[in-house]
Amino acid sequence: MAAVNNPSAPARPRVVIVGCGFGGLEATRALARADVEITLIDRTNHHLFQPLLYQVATAGLAAPAISGPIRHILRRQIRDGRLTVLLGEVTGIDAARREVRLNDGARLPYDHLIVATGATHSYFGKDGWARHAPGLKTLSDAFDLRNRVLKAFEQAERYPEEREDWLTFVVIGGGPTGVEMAGTLAEIAHHTLHDEFRRIDSRQSRVVLIEGSDRILGSYPPELSEKASRQLEKLGVEVRTGCRVTDIQPECVTAQPADGAAPWQLRTRTVVWAAGVAGSALGRAVQAATGATLDRAGRVVVQPDLSVPGHPEISVIGDLASAKSYPRRGDPTPVPGVSPSAKQMGRQAAANILHRLRGEPTQPFRYVDYGSLATIGRKAAVAQVDLPLLGTVRFSGYPAWLFWLFVHIYFLIGFRNRLMVLTDWAWAYWTFQRNARLVVEPASTAALPPPSQMETPR
Amino acid sequence: MAAVNNPSAPARPRVVIVGCGFGGLEATRALARADVEITLIDRTNHHLFQPLLYQVATAGLAAPAISGPIRHILRRQIRDGRLTVLLGEVTGIDAARREVRLNDGARLPYDHLIVATGATHSYFGKDGWARHAPGLKTLSDAFDLRNRVLKAFEQAERYPEEREDWLTFVVIGGGPTGVEMAGTLAEIAHHTLHDEFRRIDSRQSRVVLIEGSDRILGSYPPELSEKASRQLEKLGVEVRTGCRVTDIQPECVTAQPADGAAPWQLRTRTVVWAAGVAGSALGRAVQAATGATLDRAGRVVVQPDLSVPGHPEISVIGDLASAKSYPRRGDPTPVPGVSPSAKQMGRQAAANILHRLRGEPTQPFRYVDYGSLATIGRKAAVAQVDLPLLGTVRFSGYPAWLFWLFVHIYFLIGFRNRLMVLTDWAWAYWTFQRNARLVVEPASTAALPPPSQMETPR
Repeated sequence: MAAVNNPSAPARPRVVIVGCGFGGLEATRALARADVEITLIDRTNHHLFQPLLYQVATAGLAAPAISGPIRHILRRQIRDGRLTVLLGEVTGIDAARREVRLNDGARLPYDHLIVATGATHSYFGKDGWARHAPGLKTLSDAFDLRNRVLKAFEQAERYPEEREDWLTFVVIGGGPTGVEMAGTLAEIAHHTLHDEFRRIDSRQSRVVLIEGSDRILGSYPPELSEKASRQLEKLGVEVRTGCRVTDIQPECVTAQPADGAAPWQLRTRTVVWAAGVAGSALGRAVQAATGATLDRAGRVVVQPDLSVPGHPEISVIGDLASAKSYPRRGDPTPVPGVSPSAKQMGRQAAANILHRLRGEPTQPFRYVDYGSLATIGRKAAVAQVDLPLLGTVRFSGYPAWLFWLFVHIYFLIGFRNRLMVLTDWAWAYWTFQRNARLVVEPASTAALPPPSQMETPR
Repeated sequence: MAAVNNPSAPARPRVVIVGCGFGGLEATRALARADVEITLIDRTNHHLFQPLLYQVATAGLAAPAISGPIRHILRRQIRDGRLTVLLGEVTGIDAARREVRLNDGARLPYDHLIVATGATHSYFGKDGWARHAPGLKTLSDAFDLRNRVLKAFEQAERYPEEREDWLTFVVIGGGPTGVEMAGTLAEIAHHTLHDEFRRIDSRQSRVVLIEGSDRILGSYPPELSEKASRQLEKLGVEVRTGCRVTDIQPECVTAQPADGAAPWQLRTRTVVWAAGVAGSALGRAVQAATGATLDRAGRVVVQPDLSVPGHPEISVIGDLASAKSYPRRGDPTPVPGVSPSAKQMGRQAAANILHRLRGEPTQPFRYVDYGSLATIGRKAAVAQVDLPLLGTVRFSGYPAWLFWLFVHIYFLIGFRNRLMVLTDWAWAYWTFQRNARLVVEPASTAALPPPSQMETPR
C-alpha cells in the first residue's frame, strides 16, 4: 500500500485512526495542523450522528440528514495532503511490528494508533435473541427496524385476525435509546397512522418498554426518570420497570419481575433491543496484541491518558474504551458511553500524541459533563444541564424538547445536515407527519410469507 | 379476507387495482368519488416518482424525497371508506371466478380489475448479465447502484494500481435514463469528488455511454439527440452509438459496432443497464388467465379501450400494456412508455369502468403528448414541448434545464416532496455537492474481498 509521501523528505510520524464515529472524527480533526501523516479507516463511507439514528428507524428522518460522507467532512485535511481516508475493515493488530491488518490482508504501519471502533450490542450471552430483537447501531439497523415497524402495521391490515400481535411493540431497555424508540413508536401509532387503515385502528397499538432496574434512564437524576416515565405514559407507553427479559421468541417475549412475582408473557411480532452494549470485535484484537484487559462488556481498560498498558503508542477511545475521568479534585469517576465523552476522548488522545512527539508527558483524561438530555416524543423531553458558573439546571416537557432540538441540530456535522433536519422536523411538527416512511427491500424478499409460517422478519 | 362493507346494503362493485405506480395511482384517484369499493395492492408501501430514481442512484437525492407512502397519499379516500390499501403481491389471476391470487394464497374477488404492475428490465435473453449490469427500476436498485458507484471510487483509492478499471463507468442504453445516468456520473467524477482523494484523481474517470442505434434519445427529434450528444461530450462522457453490447463480464464489456468494424472491449467494474424493458411477470399471468397476446417485450396487447380481448372487465395500463393511441383524426399511433402516458391510461381505464357501470360504451384511449424532456446534467437538458395552440417549441441548455427542474418538481406527489427536492437541489446547485452520498450495507457484507478475488459487487 503505497504511502503518498515525498520520499526525499524525512518521513512524518504515521498516525492510524480506526473508526470514524465521534471519537475517531474528533481525533482526526484535532490533528489537522500537526506534522503527521494520518490514515483514517472506516467500514462505511459516512460519519453517522448516532443520537438521531432512532429517527431514521422510526421513519422520521431520511438517512442523509444524519450522516455525511467522511471524505466530504474532512476534505480540507485531505487537500492539505496529510490525511488519507480509506474504506476498509481492520481485522487485526500487530503491536510488535506496529502494523494493523486489513481484511484483504494488506498491512498498514503506524507510529501511533487510535482505536475508535465503538460498541455493538450485547445480548448478555443469549446471542440467539439478536434475530428476533435487533438493535440500533448503524444505518443498516435503522432501515431494518423501519421496515419491520411499518410492515407490522401493514401485516395487521392484511391479517386483521392477528392484529393484536402485530400491533404490540416491545422495547427492551430503558436507557435513552429505548425511551426515545418507545415514545416515537407510540406517536406513530397514535398520531401519524391513525386514519390510514380500513380494517385496523392503529391507535389500538400497545407499546411496552421493559427495563430490568427499578427506573428508566437509570444514569439520570431520579427526578428526571420519574418525569420521563410520566411523559411516556401520557403518550400511551406501558412502562414496566424491575422486569428482566428471560426469553425472546419469534412471537412472544417472556419477562421475570425482580420481586419474585410470576413471569409474564407478551405476544408480539416486533421487538427492539436497546438493553446492552459490548465493545466491538477489535477490542479482542487489541487484547490479543497487547495483553490489555477487557471489562465485562468487552471494552478495553485504558490508562488515565487513554493508552493501552505497556503500549503508550496505542490509544483506545469512545465506546470501546473503559476509561476513567480524572477531575482536578476528587476521585476518578467512570466515563459514560455518550457522544460528548467520545469526542472529548478523541481530542485528548490526539493531544497526547502531540505531547509524545514533543517529548512531553501525556495528560490524563478529564471528562467535562455538560448534563443529560433525552427526548420522549413530541414536545416532551427531560434535561439536566451543568453549566460552569451557573450550576445545574433541570427542566422537562416542552422547553426541554426545544432545547433537545437545538442541541441536536447544533451538533450535527455540517450546515447542510442542520438545514435538512430543521426542515424535516419543522414539516413534521406542523403536519404530524413522518418524512421517511419507506419500506425498501430487495425485490426477491418483498413477498410476505403466509401467516402460519410467519417468522419475525429480520 | 373480510371486506369491511355494511352487510345489509347492496354490495358496491369491487374494483381491484394492482400496482401503485403512475398508472395505478391515477386510476385509484380517478375513482375517488365513484360508488365502488376499491382495493389497491402494491408490493411496496410507497409510490415512487421513477423519473428521478437516477438521482437516488447517483446520491443526489434521498429516497424519501421522491417517494411517498401510499396510505398517506390516498388517506382521504381511505377515510371516505371506499378504499383499502394492501401491501402484498398478486401472483395469479382467475378470470373465470373473477379473483386475483395473492402470494400467501389468499383470494381477492373483483368485478373490475386494472393491472398496472409496470415493467422490469430485459437483457434480450442474456439474463446472466443482470448480475454484472444492474438496472434501475426500484429504490432497492437505486441503493445498490449508489453503493456500487461510490465504492468504485473507494476501491480505486485503496488499490490505485487498479484505478483505471475502477474509474471506468459504462452505461448501456442511450434512452433518457441512460443519458441521465451517464451525465450525472460524469458530474460526480469531475466536480463532486475531485479533491477528496489522495491517491487518485477522480477527474481521470471515464464514462462511456453505449447505444445500439445510430443516435441517443432515439425517440426524440434528431435535433435534440444531437444537442444532447454534444452536451454529454462537454461533460466528459464518451458517446458510442451504433454499437451493440455482445458480452458483459465482471471486469469487462464487449461491444460490436453495427458497421462491421472489429468488436472492442472496455475494462470496467461498474456497468449500468438502461437498455431494454420487459413487461412485469404479471403479464404472463394475464395471458394465462385470458389468452391475451404478449408482444416481444412481454407487454399485454390491449383493445383500444385498454381492456383485454374477451374480458372487458380486465384492463391493463402503463408500461405493462402494449396500447395504441386513437387520435381524433388519423391512424392509431403507438404509446410511449413514459409517465404521462401511464397516468393518462389510468384515468381512461377508470373512466371506462364508470362507463360500463352506467351501461354506456367505453372510450378508446387517446394519448396527449406534451413533448419530450431529458436532462444531461448540471444546467444542461433538451426539451420539446407541444402546446395545444402554440405548437411545438424546442430548446436546450440552461433554459431547458430550468424547465426540466420545474416540471419534475411540479409533478412530484405532495407538497412536502416538492419542498424536499427543491431544497436539496438548491443546495446541491450552489455547492456542487450531492446530498445523499451513502454506502449502506448489512454489516456482514461490509468487508471488501481481496483484489484477486474481486467480483463486481452487487
